[in-house]
Amino acid sequence: MRLSRYFLPTLRETPAEARIVSHRLMLRSGMIRRASAGIYSWLPLGFRVLKKIETVIHEEMTAAGAQAVLMPTLQLADLWRESGRYDVYGPEMLRIADRHDRDMLYGPTNEEQITQIVRDDIRSFRDLPRNLYHIQWKFRDEIRPRFGVMRGREFLMKDGYSFDLDFEGAKRSYNIMFVAYLRTYARMGLKAIPMRAESGPIGGDLSHEFIVLADTGESAIHADKRLFAMDPRADGVDLEGDLEPVVKRWTSLYAATDDKHDPATCPLPAGDLVEARGIEVGHIFYFGTKYSEPLGCAVTMPDGERRVLHGGSYGIGVSRLAAAIIEASHDDAGVVWPDAVAPFDVGLVNLKSGDADCDAAADDLYGKLRGAGVEVLLDDREERAGVKFADMDLIGLPWQLAVGPRGARAGTVELKRRAGGEKHELAADAALQRILDKSA
Amino acid sequence: MRLSRYFLPTLRETPAEARIVSHRLMLRSGMIRRASAGIYSWLPLGFRVLKKIETVIHEEMTAAGAQAVLMPTLQLADLWRESGRYDVYGPEMLRIADRHDRDMLYGPTNEEQITQIVRDDIRSFRDLPRNLYHIQWKFRDEIRPRFGVMRGREFLMKDGYSFDLDFEGAKRSYNIMFVAYLRTYARMGLKAIPMRAESGPIGGDLSHEFIVLADTGESAIHADKRLFAMDPRADGVDLEGDLEPVVKRWTSLYAATDDKHDPATCPLPAGDLVEARGIEVGHIFYFGTKYSEPLGCAVTMPDGERRVLHGGSYGIGVSRLAAAIIEASHDDAGVVWPDAVAPFDVGLVNLKSGDADCDAAADDLYGKLRGAGVEVLLDDREERAGVKFADMDLIGLPWQLAVGPRGARAGTVELKRRAGGEKHELAADAALQRILDKSA
Repeated sequence: MRLSRYFLPTLRETPAEARIVSHRLMLRSGMIRRASAGIYSWLPLGFRVLKKIETVIHEEMTAAGAQAVLMPTLQLADLWRESGRYDVYGPEMLRIADRHDRDMLYGPTNEEQITQIVRDDIRSFRDLPRNLYHIQWKFRDEIRPRFGVMRGREFLMKDGYSFDLDFEGAKRSYNIMFVAYLRTYARMGLKAIPMRAESGPIGGDLSHEFIVLADTGESAIHADKRLFAMDPRADGVDLEGDLEPVVKRWTSLYAATDDKHDPATCPLPAGDLVEARGIEVGHIFYFGTKYSEPLGCAVTMPDGERRVLHGGSYGIGVSRLAAAIIEASHDDAGVVWPDAVAPFDVGLVNLKSGDADCDAAADDLYGKLRGAGVEVLLDDREERAGVKFADMDLIGLPWQLAVGPRGARAGTVELKRRAGGEKHELAADAALQRILDKSA
Repeated sequence: MRLSRYFLPTLRETPAEARIVSHRLMLRSGMIRRASAGIYSWLPLGFRVLKKIETVIHEEMTAAGAQAVLMPTLQLADLWRESGRYDVYGPEMLRIADRHDRDMLYGPTNEEQITQIVRDDIRSFRDLPRNLYHIQWKFRDEIRPRFGVMRGREFLMKDGYSFDLDFEGAKRSYNIMFVAYLRTYARMGLKAIPMRAESGPIGGDLSHEFIVLADTGESAIHADKRLFAMDPRADGVDLEGDLEPVVKRWTSLYAATDDKHDPATCPLPAGDLVEARGIEVGHIFYFGTKYSEPLGCAVTMPDGERRVLHGGSYGIGVSRLAAAIIEASHDDAGVVWPDAVAPFDVGLVNLKSGDADCDAAADDLYGKLRGAGVEVLLDDREERAGVKFADMDLIGLPWQLAVGPRGARAGTVELKRRAGGEKHELAADAALQRILDKSA
């Protein structure tokens, strides 16, 4: 993409409305714009990030045996009356009457809807387990939306639901998602810590929040230092095998949010405890027959027994993740995108647009990178070099390639890795090769 | 994907609610399920089709210089008051009050919202033209929703908007979209005829609907037979060049919907006229300064002149297309998916699951096809061969590969092309090669 044609309205000033760094940087780097309170439009750069995050989630969910569906945003109130949640849910639920005065609502979550789907079309106990998910817009009418897409009203969420014959099966489905979640966040360059969460009305211990570490995070966490050294990708886990040992390895180590942590009773010596801050980006929990029972989601076993299905629910805040990743990965100059979710792989800076040598060298690199399947943003604007470098640092693409008049004639470029900031002047082909090697 | 694990609830019976063939087949092939009046959930097979359609659109829009954004589903009523449309729009607009009693609405279209975005962030006349689009859910509260996703209330739409300095620029943007639309439909295996449409409040002739041909289509059309022989992909068009001759070639030929066609005044001799039926799947139109003027979307020219931008609007019914493609491509046995939008490329039928030879041969082919990047659905269920073939024909994947006990031992398979139905018994590797050659 040529920046001269790209809709990338970066801002030099920090908008007054933004109080946290991700919100500031998303506005300044032209990723999002506010449409109304807690509701945002995603501009081209932000949309690309959102799609990258979705892709990672789709791939990891597919690898874990979950299947993608797509449920609508609007639901019938009657369905929520069946589960008993319609009257319980607070003013966060956006209630709507259609032209025939039917009560509807903008889904804040989809347990009822997916349970209805499975109930109506499950044929046999042999079809279980089932794990279905979708990535769809949700609405929660927060009384005081803030922090940009971190706590918006209309937000994109991946929510998945598992259905099993019994608790043992449900626990297996839960464990698969537990591991898949760790992998998903790791692929996005995030360190995520699973934390025991309130178990809600069901009881039991199958409820975890995933907190990604960010110095600017909303909540303080206290956790065993060994948790921070663990890498879910290093486990070499077979998702079809027994995952209980893997989950145990993660959950047996101490981890607590501020409201649950009490230094007086903490079992860990201070030296083994890490105090950090984090942002919740996912929540998984087992809810048993809470929805299957009232909605009649059951199968008949060979012996004639009617078995009400056991369910679990698995959520990832997709639009929130875009902000959380920035909270976890930025510096004073701007965003530092991890490779997997970067809107482009390379920012190619033509330091003197209009100079024949520079234009030729930049166009040549642009063509070669695109030909090799690398996503490139070419800054071909007629701007000062300082403006171009500042914009590139702000939008935070993993690689920067700068072509100036001297280098263009000598056949060299300056290659910079945004994370770390080290720069190397090297032959254009060598720079190209280094990028290809690293993105492979 | 192994069908034994796939959520594909096909139906043998035709559901009573379905009155047109696409609706029947989408329900029967397990693509969609009704959530409430005019609102549907997309099950795994349907979701895959929707994604394929989106991919074709994204690719063709990108090739045409349009950039993807994502605007929210809910909009502020005040924005529509600025344009004057809030009070004009009928009961099809779903009006909503949030918890603070602010008037909002579920967007039926996005002219106001995109105009606001461009207004707030356009920096210079040099940034023009701009063409921004998104694929997002819309809501129109049809009084009598029917025909499944063909005329639903919540529907997925690609809507794009161009902004130019003047009429000449807007016409150029319009022409690019005109050609991009023809290509988009052609890639989906559809024959689309552009038809002059009501020009609305702006006047002028820059308004076309795109009608895809289907015997079961909702409206009758009358058109010059030469239109049916034209292939937009054969034009070899440079989208950056002058497209006026290409557009002229398409628009100079007679084409009219039933309500505008009058045999008495039709300029064509009967022999040159084709009578057909079709479904509207897109609409493009130039709307001038209709939204830019009230919303103040303008730039300042070098001579100090304030120039209000000229806009165009370009819509494609994405969820509707899934149905329209089926209307255009099916037979008595089921759907016949065109390659580009098929949910899987190949249906691999193990005619005797549990038979060691069959299982080994099917697994081998399954692995090889997947290894070559081909999307395969393997029917590994314990069902009769007749049931398996019927389901495969119903869901309509472009290729069917059947492995039976005799063939498994001889190293042969039966390859069937769903469109046309011709079958060949050939060596497994030769069948594999034929599929790879055709999908390349």
